[in-house]
Amino acid sequence: MEQPSSTKRNCLPSATFDETVGDPVVEDMEEERKNFFKIIAAFKYYRHSSVAELKRKECFLQTLPASHQDMLHSYQEHLRNLKRCIDMNAQVIKQIIQDANCLFQNADHNIEPDQQPSEGLKIRYQDFQKVQITLKQIFRDWSEHGKLERDQCYKPIIEEITTFFDPTKYDLSKVKILVPGAGLGRLIYELACQGFYCEGNEFSLFMLIASNFVLNRCVIENQCTIYPWVHQFVNNLSKKHQLLPVSFPDVSPTKYPPKGTMNMVAGDFLQVYRDENYWDCIATCFFIDCANNIIEFIEVIKNILKPGGIWVNLGPLLYHFSDVPHEGSIEPTYEDLIEIIRSLGFIILKNETDVMTSYSQNPNSMHQSHYNSIYLVCQKPLN
Amino acid sequence: MEQPSSTKRNCLPSATFDETVGDPVVEDMEEERKNFFKIIAAFKYYRHSSVAELKRKECFLQTLPASHQDMLHSYQEHLRNLKRCIDMNAQVIKQIIQDANCLFQNADHNIEPDQQPSEGLKIRYQDFQKVQITLKQIFRDWSEHGKLERDQCYKPIIEEITTFFDPTKYDLSKVKILVPGAGLGRLIYELACQGFYCEGNEFSLFMLIASNFVLNRCVIENQCTIYPWVHQFVNNLSKKHQLLPVSFPDVSPTKYPPKGTMNMVAGDFLQVYRDENYWDCIATCFFIDCANNIIEFIEVIKNILKPGGIWVNLGPLLYHFSDVPHEGSIEPTYEDLIEIIRSLGFIILKNETDVMTSYSQNPNSMHQSHYNSIYLVCQKPLN
Repeated sequence: MEQPSSTKRNCLPSATFDETVGDPVVEDMEEERKNFFKIIAAFKYYRHSSVAELKRKECFLQTLPASHQDMLHSYQEHLRNLKRCIDMNAQVIKQIIQDANCLFQNADHNIEPDQQPSEGLKIRYQDFQKVQITLKQIFRDWSEHGKLERDQCYKPIIEEITTFFDPTKYDLSKVKILVPGAGLGRLIYELACQGFYCEGNEFSLFMLIASNFVLNRCVIENQCTIYPWVHQFVNNLSKKHQLLPVSFPDVSPTKYPPKGTMNMVAGDFLQVYRDENYWDCIATCFFIDCANNIIEFIEVIKNILKPGGIWVNLGPLLYHFSDVPHEGSIEPTYEDLIEIIRSLGFIILKNETDVMTSYSQNPNSMHQSHYNSIYLVCQKPLN
Repeated sequence: MEQPSSTKRNCLPSATFDETVGDPVVEDMEEERKNFFKIIAAFKYYRHSSVAELKRKECFLQTLPASHQDMLHSYQEHLRNLKRCIDMNAQVIKQIIQDANCLFQNADHNIEPDQQPSEGLKIRYQDFQKVQITLKQIFRDWSEHGKLERDQCYKPIIEEITTFFDPTKYDLSKVKILVPGAGLGRLIYELACQGFYCEGNEFSLFMLIASNFVLNRCVIENQCTIYPWVHQFVNNLSKKHQLLPVSFPDVSPTKYPPKGTMNMVAGDFLQVYRDENYWDCIATCFFIDCANNIIEFIEVIKNILKPGGIWVNLGPLLYHFSDVPHEGSIEPTYEDLIEIIRSLGFIILKNETDVMTSYSQNPNSMHQSHYNSIYLVCQKPLN
C-alpha cells in the first residue's frame, strides 16, 4: 500500500486535486509528490514490465527441446496475441495517466508510456501488480461484464439507503452519504444518481488516478477497451478467455451526470474525517477489514455519523494487514466484532451473514473464489 | 519447494528410506541430508514460530488505547485458546517427526519440538507455512471432515480405474498403478484397498514425513487431534471455527491394511521414473501443473505406461512456477494442452471440464474457493 495522503482534496467536479485545502507540512507534500511519481511510473512502464514478463516465458521456451517447441506453436502465437493486448492496455493507461497530469496542478513530469524505465528507476513488482489490479477494478466497477459483482454488493446497499431515506420524506440532495474506500467510484455515482449528496474517500493513488479518468474523461459509453485477464497465465481453459476484451464505461458519468452531487476525496479515512455528527449515512463495501485496528474505523464511523444516521456495511473480514511484515493487526472474528459494535453504542438493525459476493473474479477462470460476506445495518442512537 | 531428492527410496512397508537404492553422488547425499534437517527444523520449531506469530498480535494489542483493549477481552481470551491449540498441534508434530528419525537410517539429530531455535538457525517463513499446509493436508487426506474433498477428486479416479480394470478379467494384484504427487497417500491406500499394486511418488519431504507417520504409525482410528485452522486469522465468523479440532486418521492403514500392495517412493518424478512400458495405469490428481514444463511430465507418463494402459487425470492448471522468480514456466491453456496430449499419441477416452473440486478448503471460512477442474482419461495406443 502506498503512503497515505493526509490532505483533503477534491478531484470532482474540478478534476484537479486542490492542494490548498488543509494544511500540509512542506516535507509531507514532498513525500506525497514522490509517491505520486512512483505510482505514475508504475503506470508509465506497464508495457515495459508486461513485455519483460512475456520475454521471460519466451526465453524459457527457447531452452526446451525442439520437439517440445514444435508442440507449442499455438502457445507461442498466443504469447504474441497477448503482447498485442498489452499494447492496447498500455494505450488506455496512457490516457489514464495523461489526465493525472492535472491532478497535481504544477506537475512537470513527462508521460510517455512506451518508454523504457530510465537508469536507476526500479518499478517494484507489487506496483506493477497494482496496475494489473486497477485494470480488474475497471472491469468490476465500470464494465457491463462486472454487473454481476456490482449487483451482489452495491444493490443491497443502495436499496437499503433508498428505503431508509424515503424520497417522499427527505430532500435527498441534503442527505449526506460518505463512502470510505470508494475505489473507482461506481457506488458514489449510483448513490448520486438517486439524488443523494455522496462523497467517496480513497487512499490509493492507483484508484484515484483511474477513477478521475473514468468519472471526468470518459464522455461516451464503452469508449475504451482493456484486456483485464492477460496477466493471468494459470487456470485458463481457452486462449480466448485470457484475451477477453472488456469495454468501459458501461455508462458515462459525464454524459449522464447524476441528479445528486458526487465528490471524491483523497486521503487516509482516519485522518481526513474529524467532523462529528456530520454524515447522515456511511456506506462501507469491502472496506472495514483494511484497518490495522478495526475498532478505530468503527469508532470514527460512529463519531462522524449524525445521531439517528445509519452505517451500512457489506464485505468479508479479510484483515489486510494480517500477514504484512512489520504491520500490527488485530483480527477479531465476526461474533466478537458484533459485540464491539454494540459496545460502541450502535443499534444493530440488520445482521446477516453468508451474503455471496465476488471480487474482481475472472468469470472464465478454472479457479473460482467468493466471499460469504457479512451484511450489517447499524444506527447511531438519537442520544 | 524444497530441493529435489533424486534417489529412489521406499518408505513403505519398511518404514525406513532405503539409501542404497539408486546411485547418488556423495555431494548430493550431503545436500539431501541438509535439506532433510532444514525441514525437520521447520517442524521442530513449529511451536516457537507459531507462538512468535501470536506474540506479535498481542504486542500490537498492548499499544492500543485502553478503551479498545477493554473491548478486546474476548479476542484476547481467544488468542490464549489458540495458543493451547498450537501446543496440541506441536505435540502431534513431535510424534510425526519422532518417526522421521528412522527415515534416514543413520540420523543423529535430536528432536525436541518445544525448544527455541539455536543461534544462527533461521526457520524460513515459507517453511513454517509448509508445516501449516501439512496440517491442512492431514485434514484433506485423513480426516472424516475431509471426506467431501476426497469424494470430489479421488472417487471419480477410483471408479474409472476399477471399471477399466474389471476384477473379473484382471488379477488386480498384478495391475501396477503409479500415483505421482501422492501427498499424504490416501489415494494409493484406497487403490491398494481395491486390490491393486499401487505406488505413490512424492517430492516434498513435508509430505513424505507426514505420510510415513499416518501410513505406518497410526494404529487406531482418530488417534491424533490437530487444529488445522488456528493460523487462519481472517474471515472467521466464529471463534469456534478457528479452534475446530480435526481427528485423524478416519481409518488406520496399519489396522486395516489394504488387500493389494502400496508403496511410497521419494524423489523427483522426472528423475525416478525411467522404465518404459512398465505401468498399467497412472493416476494424477492435482499434479501435472506442478511442472516447469508440463510436456515433460506428459511425455514421461506416456513413456512409462504400457501400451494399452491408461492415464487418469483430475485437477486445475494452476501452473506452480508461473510466478516464482528465477523459475522457467510454460502455461498452455487447456485447449492447447489437449492438442499436445493428442500429438504425443494418446487416445483421449474422456475429456470433461467444470469438475468442481476444492483443495484444503476451510469449510467454515467466509472465503470459499474451488476449482472447475479438468478430468481426462487417456490411453496409450497398443502400437
